[in-house]
This record gives sequence, C-alpha cells and structure tokens, in this order.
Amino acid sequence: MIKARVTVTLKNGVLDPQGKAIEGALSSLGFNGIGHVRQGKVFDLEVEGDDKAKAEAELKDMCEKLLANTVIENYTIAID
Amino acid sequence: MIKARVTVTLKNGVLDPQGKAIEGALSSLGFNGIGHVRQGKVFDLEVEGDDKAKAEAELKDMCEKLLANTVIENYTIAID
Repeated sequence: MIKARVTVTLKNGVLDPQGKAIEGALSSLGFNGIGHVRQGKVFDLEVEGDDKAKAEAELKDMCEKLLANTVIENYTIAID
Repeated sequence: MIKARVTVTLKNGVLDPQGKAIEGALSSLGFNGIGHVRQGKVFDLEVEGDDKAKAEAELKDMCEKLLANTVIENYTIAID
C-alpha cells in the first residue's frame, strides 16, 4: 500500500477571493505584514500495491480527471 | 520576506464525508484500489521580514486563531 499526498493550488494570475478574505481576516486579527495568501487543497490517499511508478501514473490520471481543474489549477504529487 | 505553507488536515477519527465522496467518484471513474481519501486545506502565504523563528511563531498563532479548527484539525507549517 502506497500513501500519497496530492496538493492542488491555483495557477499564478488566477484570482483567489478566498485567499484575499483570509488576508483581510488575518489583518483584522492584528497580524500585519502578511501578503499573497493563496488557498489550495490537499488530498491524502492510499493506493493499493507496491509499484510506485504505476501509482504515480494513476494519481496523475486522477488529478487530470477529477482532483484538479487543470485550466486554473496546478497539482503536485508526493509519494511516501 | 519569508514564504510559508500551512497544511491543515482533519484529525484521525474525524469523519470526512468530502473524502468519502471523492473516493466514490474515483471508483466510478474506474480507479480501483484507492482508499482512505481525506481532504485538507493548504495556505501559501508570505510573511514580511527575515526572522524565520519569529515568522514560525506568528504562523502558529494564526493557525490557532484562524486557519485551523484545532478541535478537529491538525496543522503543519513549512517555511521555505
């Protein structure tokens, strides 16, 4: 069994209103000097088998088909 | 300026219906042998200054106060 973490983040240039809202909230809480807040998603999953190369290929396919919107998002795959 | 990534994940034992839904969707797309899908959040942010220890303390404070719900979520802070 292989443990993997997929991180999906917005591409540069894509507006992130949620990140902006967090930036504003942090500022109202008194945290100053915080900038460029961007929110993304992380998926932890387990893939059956022991073939890391096969698992990585499958994860890439999952990202393209479901986990990420590749028009506006980048993804990275980290395998334990 | 310090770049940091905060990753917020659900604690073990906390139900994750979103993760379960993703697991079901992956299975309907024909991806078999995928289990234990858990979804979390990632925040990329920039902190002014060059003092990494100070930035880390400040980020921890932000997590406790805003970014994570520490009753049900864990967080990790990675500083570039």
